[in-house]
Amino acid sequence: MRSPYFTVEHDVFREGVRKFVAEEVAPNADLWERDHMIPREIWRRMGELGYLGINHSEAHGGSEADFFYSVVFLEELARGNMGGFTAAVSVQQYMATAHIAKAGSEDIKQQFLVPSIEGQAVGALAISEPDTGSDVANIRTRARREGDEYVIDGAKMFITNGYYADFVVVACRTGEDGASGISLIVVETTRPGFKARKLDKIGWRCSDTAEMSFDGVRVPVSNLVGKENHGFYYIMESFQLERLVGAVGAIGAADYVLEFTGKYIRERQAFGRPVARFQTIRHDMADMVTELAAARQLVYHTAWLYDQGEVPVLECSMIKLKAAELCNEIIDRCLQCHGGYGYMEEYPIARAYRDTRVGTIAGGTSAIMREIIAKMVLD
Amino acid sequence: MRSPYFTVEHDVFREGVRKFVAEEVAPNADLWERDHMIPREIWRRMGELGYLGINHSEAHGGSEADFFYSVVFLEELARGNMGGFTAAVSVQQYMATAHIAKAGSEDIKQQFLVPSIEGQAVGALAISEPDTGSDVANIRTRARREGDEYVIDGAKMFITNGYYADFVVVACRTGEDGASGISLIVVETTRPGFKARKLDKIGWRCSDTAEMSFDGVRVPVSNLVGKENHGFYYIMESFQLERLVGAVGAIGAADYVLEFTGKYIRERQAFGRPVARFQTIRHDMADMVTELAAARQLVYHTAWLYDQGEVPVLECSMIKLKAAELCNEIIDRCLQCHGGYGYMEEYPIARAYRDTRVGTIAGGTSAIMREIIAKMVLD
Amino acid sequence: MRSPYFTVEHDVFREGVRKFVAEEVAPNADLWERDHMIPREIWRRMGELGYLGINHSEAHGGSEADFFYSVVFLEELARGNMGGFTAAVSVQQYMATAHIAKAGSEDIKQQFLVPSIEGQAVGALAISEPDTGSDVANIRTRARREGDEYVIDGAKMFITNGYYADFVVVACRTGEDGASGISLIVVETTRPGFKARKLDKIGWRCSDTAEMSFDGVRVPVSNLVGKENHGFYYIMESFQLERLVGAVGAIGAADYVLEFTGKYIRERQAFGRPVARFQTIRHDMADMVTELAAARQLVYHTAWLYDQGEVPVLECSMIKLKAAELCNEIIDRCLQCHGGYGYMEEYPIARAYRDTRVGTIAGGTSAIMREIIAKMVLD
Amino acid sequence: MRSPYFTVEHDVFREGVRKFVAEEVAPNADLWERDHMIPREIWRRMGELGYLGINHSEAHGGSEADFFYSVVFLEELARGNMGGFTAAVSVQQYMATAHIAKAGSEDIKQQFLVPSIEGQAVGALAISEPDTGSDVANIRTRARREGDEYVIDGAKMFITNGYYADFVVVACRTGEDGASGISLIVVETTRPGFKARKLDKIGWRCSDTAEMSFDGVRVPVSNLVGKENHGFYYIMESFQLERLVGAVGAIGAADYVLEFTGKYIRERQAFGRPVARFQTIRHDMADMVTELAAARQLVYHTAWLYDQGEVPVLECSMIKLKAAELCNEIIDRCLQCHGGYGYMEEYPIARAYRDTRVGTIAGGTSAIMREIIAKMVLD
Ligand SMILES: Cc1cc2nc3c(=O)[nH]c(=O)nc-3n(C[C@H](O)[C@H](O)[C@H](O)COP(=O)(O)OP(=O)(O)OC[C@H]3O[C@@H](n4cnc5c(N)ncnc54)[C@H](O)[C@@H]3O)c2cc1C
Ligand SMILES: Cc1cc2nc3c(=O)[nH]c(=O)nc-3n(C[C@H](O)[C@H](O)[C@H](O)COP(=O)(O)OP(=O)(O)OC[C@H]3O[C@@H](n4cnc5c(N)ncnc54)[C@H](O)[C@@H]3O)c2cc1C
Ligand SMILES: Cc1cc2nc3c(=O)[nH]c(=O)nc-3n(C[C@H](O)[C@H](O)[C@H](O)COP(=O)(O)OP(=O)(O)OC[C@H]3O[C@@H](n4cnc5c(N)ncnc54)[C@H](O)[C@@H]3O)c2cc1C
Ligand SMILES: Cc1cc2nc3c(=O)[nH]c(=O)nc-3n(C[C@H](O)[C@H](O)[C@H](O)COP(=O)(O)OP(=O)(O)OC[C@H]3O[C@@H](n4cnc5c(N)ncnc54)[C@H](O)[C@@H]3O)c2cc1C
Repeated sequence: MRSPYFTVEHDVFREGVRKFVAEEVAPNADLWERDHMIPREIWRRMGELGYLGINHSEAHGGSEADFFYSVVFLEELARGNMGGFTAAVSVQQYMATAHIAKAGSEDIKQQFLVPSIEGQAVGALAISEPDTGSDVANIRTRARREGDEYVIDGAKMFITNGYYADFVVVACRTGEDGASGISLIVVETTRPGFKARKLDKIGWRCSDTAEMSFDGVRVPVSNLVGKENHGFYYIMESFQLERLVGAVGAIGAADYVLEFTGKYIRERQAFGRPVARFQTIRHDMADMVTELAAARQLVYHTAWLYDQGEVPVLECSMIKLKAAELCNEIIDRCLQCHGGYGYMEEYPIARAYRDTRVGTIAGGTSAIMREIIAKMVLD
Repeated sequence: MRSPYFTVEHDVFREGVRKFVAEEVAPNADLWERDHMIPREIWRRMGELGYLGINHSEAHGGSEADFFYSVVFLEELARGNMGGFTAAVSVQQYMATAHIAKAGSEDIKQQFLVPSIEGQAVGALAISEPDTGSDVANIRTRARREGDEYVIDGAKMFITNGYYADFVVVACRTGEDGASGISLIVVETTRPGFKARKLDKIGWRCSDTAEMSFDGVRVPVSNLVGKENHGFYYIMESFQLERLVGAVGAIGAADYVLEFTGKYIRERQAFGRPVARFQTIRHDMADMVTELAAARQLVYHTAWLYDQGEVPVLECSMIKLKAAELCNEIIDRCLQCHGGYGYMEEYPIARAYRDTRVGTIAGGTSAIMREIIAKMVLD
Repeated sequence: MRSPYFTVEHDVFREGVRKFVAEEVAPNADLWERDHMIPREIWRRMGELGYLGINHSEAHGGSEADFFYSVVFLEELARGNMGGFTAAVSVQQYMATAHIAKAGSEDIKQQFLVPSIEGQAVGALAISEPDTGSDVANIRTRARREGDEYVIDGAKMFITNGYYADFVVVACRTGEDGASGISLIVVETTRPGFKARKLDKIGWRCSDTAEMSFDGVRVPVSNLVGKENHGFYYIMESFQLERLVGAVGAIGAADYVLEFTGKYIRERQAFGRPVARFQTIRHDMADMVTELAAARQLVYHTAWLYDQGEVPVLECSMIKLKAAELCNEIIDRCLQCHGGYGYMEEYPIARAYRDTRVGTIAGGTSAIMREIIAKMVLD
Repeated sequence: MRSPYFTVEHDVFREGVRKFVAEEVAPNADLWERDHMIPREIWRRMGELGYLGINHSEAHGGSEADFFYSVVFLEELARGNMGGFTAAVSVQQYMATAHIAKAGSEDIKQQFLVPSIEGQAVGALAISEPDTGSDVANIRTRARREGDEYVIDGAKMFITNGYYADFVVVACRTGEDGASGISLIVVETTRPGFKARKLDKIGWRCSDTAEMSFDGVRVPVSNLVGKENHGFYYIMESFQLERLVGAVGAIGAADYVLEFTGKYIRERQAFGRPVARFQTIRHDMADMVTELAAARQLVYHTAWLYDQGEVPVLECSMIKLKAAELCNEIIDRCLQCHGGYGYMEEYPIARAYRDTRVGTIAGGTSAIMREIIAKMVLD
């Protein structure tokens, strides 16, 4: 073994996911990207294969595997070279349902978590709004209580899975201004007054990022996740998992792009020899694999801490920052290695390039990561 | 005046172009980009306005203006925020027709240059091939002489204006291997045996970049530009103009993006104040405007040398390198300033981001620029 | 001519300074650096040669040359590869005496400016204090008026020429807190109560940077420069010249280091060929000369604006930022090109390395430059 | 525990070394640096404390501790803020004696290893020569066999401990040109014909880096380490340990500098608040700790591989590259955080700055690391 973190069982699992991605995901990329849609069959298929439950409790159909199974799963998903798909799965499995799994009532779990694990339901998590993204405590979508119901008014922005989802975990203001007046409420997308609009993006095209409006949407109070006005704390805690998951995806993507770029430059000829023989390109590759190796070890270390039951806020913020920035940089330089072909949509690097760019924005921008890190090391 | 390079007349001209771009180019961007096509009317309109001839001789319908008119023109075109359009015009005016203007016979000039200046004809310049881009001396498209004709066989790749052009200046092998066996030959796109295929790209979407095949295409020997087997030297010389033009476009684009990003961050609020109040963003902006100011002065200096009749190979290579790399970096950082909106196609930064990326590739990659510069300063 | 800024006369002047530096400055570097002292003879010699007056009025013994003579002078001084010497001269000529020349009474000019131009007197400018450097408005050295005298108490820090100077232009608090209570007062270093201590530094070793204490130092009120409580505005204005001068020195130094490094790598062999044949080193050199060329043009442009009578705050801040940062970076990379020899004091790169590092600190840190630039472009 | 690599025992050991460094090393730094000499007492003291044998066999007086004890030891040495001392110890313990321990005869071990572990003898390792550093296979110092002796002629350059050492392990050419004709031979510095000259350096001042000349130096053939003409392979293998050791030192140094810089910026005031409150400085710190955390995990991972008995060439090259480059960058930015004080020798950052710079050169330059990495990932 070349790492204290992985066992043979992880390797076996990896092979399975790799095969699945190569045979059932990657070949469909062009289609899903063109349609701006991930079809339901693939969710069901992942449910069938048990992938959507590796991080969930056996009681609800999951397998409660250690977190390095998730690491493997997310690294391998990245080999589909479709950031939007990785994002969609990550949101479903580690964000939307994570809240429900962590703080939800058994009823809510039965209603939303179980079918999500089965791949029968797809979820979204809606925090950001048109006027506020980084400043989570400032959201304005309001849920006021009327009898046994919440009545929700407001808007959400940039919500992954937001157009085709069955349910959305929505951060709503139920109390006073600021962090201590926010709750998480599950909203079924069939509820009257809910509307969503798909957004056209640079990348993550298969992923249905949506703007949502809530116009007097009514849901039963039992749709509340956890305690009222505790939403901000749930969100802050779950951000750690989200960022860890995002970081794993980023190193997976960078790794895959380096792999096919290495192949390309060994084959492409210029001035009578493979491009991979030019020293500047060689040293560039050396720098990139080195940076990636370092980022990877920090990601694994963080995953290990997480698996030990810690909430490693500092490390999660660091890997989100580092992995996302690095992934952008690596893919940018790999595109350059492709010369003119790098700019052509026919080549996989083009999609990788369009997809990666959101990594330093979604899930908290790099600036926000630096804010958290600085606070933790300086104050 | 705040620069020794520009006069009041240049400023007046600038206002005219700015108005034209704002009223007749920018509003059509979405359409042209969707259609992957620049309509003929706009070419004719530019012909009418005299823009397409500012760098050409009065004898052929141009105005022989000093080069800083071209600088102004290209800087202003960039404000259309449509890199593909700037590219198309640049190719037409400073590349395809430049060869004809420089080395072509009077006949060829009448046939291709005059209507190009009028906006009645559109030209392309085809050097790169599927198997060779950086290594120009290695092209393989062959033109063999048969009586009064050249018969051309081969393929060209990544040719701007290549799909809708009326004529293409094609680099062909007419002699031995290497640099000394290349000629430039004009090929009308209506000639039998010529075929073109549009390529789908990350950006420059309105621009019809094409792969071309020549299957026994016959043109009269009078279509030869300049002397047989002198093509490589023509190309090398004209690269300087191409790179200067590209660099001007790059600083124009960077400048424009900085302008609208500045506006965005002054308006966008987070944590109770405009994003433009965060020191990290402020210093980022400061670095960017500083780098741009430096690049700009080097571009102007190079334009001045060019205007003095020099062929400033070193400076042209330096500004191509610097301006293209910087433009990428600035636009990338400006996208980041936009947060999630930066990733949305509805915002101008998204197209700018997709467009700029080709700048360090087309017209000679950054690596090739560094090769030239190093040769000139070290050997 | 390859630049609109320089004439043949400038070139002739350049040759003179170059010879002077090569013959009378550079050979003494080791000695002066070891002694942490610049001997008086060299000041007198420069006075004799007229160098110390190129930017001063003919009425006081100067030659009132256009500013590009100063550019030439400072670029050439840098070829002495002794940052401390360039700094000492710059302070004398463009800082300490500049205030006197600009706002001083004729009396003060006769007393301090005239001998400074002759190289008979050496001046310093003392603004920074132990507790405040960046925040100029916050200085605490106090001058209270007693009859016809000012009585000065306080301390100054990091003052160039501060140990061997004959006179010091001292920023003192004469009024209220903040920017509007500061005055400039000339203090002769022979006055009782004045003490100075030399500081040991990473570089600039020949330059006598000093910590000063003022313990009831009395000077006549006629030693006031300009108007009382107007000091802050004088300082802010003169910072522009100081920064322009610093930027010219930085590009001069970078240029010189690139020159001798180029020579070194062409001679040094590794793996059977000159180190200058390795592509990574070549491209590094290409990047460096490109960046320097861009910075240089912006510096010249700024000098031109200055020479036109403008106070180009934005441009001065930009070139101070860019030239100082770039000079550090270039010299760092050039050291790397030297391999192990780069770390040895026997090689000129070692001193260059130690000297350059202060460039982003003295004269206002890079952060302060970015603050100014951001304010001007964003607010 | 927050890491799978360290145990409580390591922590206890760490405390001991930290105390030793704080009490017996750091207070002497100014003296040793001024004298360009590390006194013998400190070697003997380290011998006494058992430190010099943690990586050596019990049979020769060592403690055969796992490699993470060496990691702890080297990290803590760095807190002495004296790169030259860390270097001297590293050479003694992990380079000079490492060859002897690995391939030497029992006789040689008794003669040189045992007293080295006791701190009674100090060793050096001499590979580099005036004309060749990176290109190890090209060394020219020749040892020809005469009866029972080797007669050595040639010169060595940049040899750490080279002036005060008792013995030097010298790479000599005993056979043909190139890699396969090199042997390692121990030379006592008392042998006639051996001379050494101390070199004056930017940093590592306490360390006696020397140029050596061998003028017919005779040593018994029993001084050969391992097999004749196998030297290159010994060197290549031992480079891995050297680079691992260097990388640990680099992260130790970076960590320590970040610690005291953090303290400085929390205390230093500007514009009415601690410098640590400025966002740009905060984000800078955040970037640095993040990069360091990533590098650190890769270093630990490599140490783990090494401890498992692997010879992790790729990882050792990566961490040497990354840790040395990063340490330079971090210390440079930390110096900037100090403002003017950062340039003063009175502050610890000044020595750290001068010391760190050699990190990307000694032990193989960054370019050579990139060469190795590229070869391993691309060829
Ligand atoms: C494709 C995509 C998918 C997404 N999916 C989801 C989802 O599923 N659910 C969801 O809730 N959200 C989602 N988001 C939203 C995402 O989390 C936000 O876009 C992100 O947090 C940034 O918020 P913003 O867009 O409002 O940027 P803003 O907060 O407006 O930031 C604008 C700029 O200001 C900077 N900035 C802000 N504050 C500071 C500061 N204090 N200091 C320095 N700089 C600062 C930012 O770094 C950025 O550069 C998604 C976004 C995208 C693009
Ligand atoms: C949108 C677009 C429009 C274009 N328009 C035109 C046009 O109108 N007419 C035309 O003729 N061409 C055009 N081109 C082609 C363009 O000029 C080439 O793509 C470019 O010169 C690079 O060539 P290549 O794509 O073959 O890359 P390659 O030459 O295959 O280069 C691949 C990689 O190797 C690197 N490399 C190559 N040689 C070296 C070396 N010696 N040292 C180090 N690295 C090296 C490159 O930098 C690059 O990173 C266009 C390209 C694009 C993308
Ligand atoms: C060799 C040398 C010669 C000098 N010569 C002279 C001289 O002749 N006369 C003279 O008056 N002075 C002189 N100086 C002083 C010099 O001008 C100051 O050192 C400089 O202005 C920085 O001030 P400081 O050292 O107090 O740093 P501080 O102001 O304490 O700054 C510490 C750090 O905080 C940062 N910082 C400060 N404010 C901000 C902010 N708002 N936002 C972000 N970051 C911030 C700085 O960039 C720096 O990184 C000299 C200094 C040196 C080293
Ligand atoms: C303080 C100090 C202590 C040292 N201690 C020891 C010691 O104890 N024992 C010992 O044997 N040596 C020691 N060294 C020597 C050190 O190992 C060499 O300096 C180092 O290997 C570089 O060799 P060089 O100096 O000959 O540089 P060169 O090999 O001359 O390199 C010059 C430049 O060329 C570059 N270069 C070389 N080859 C290539 C290539 N193929 N591609 C791209 N760039 C290339 C290098 O990166 C460098 O930038 C020490 C050096 C120093 C400075």
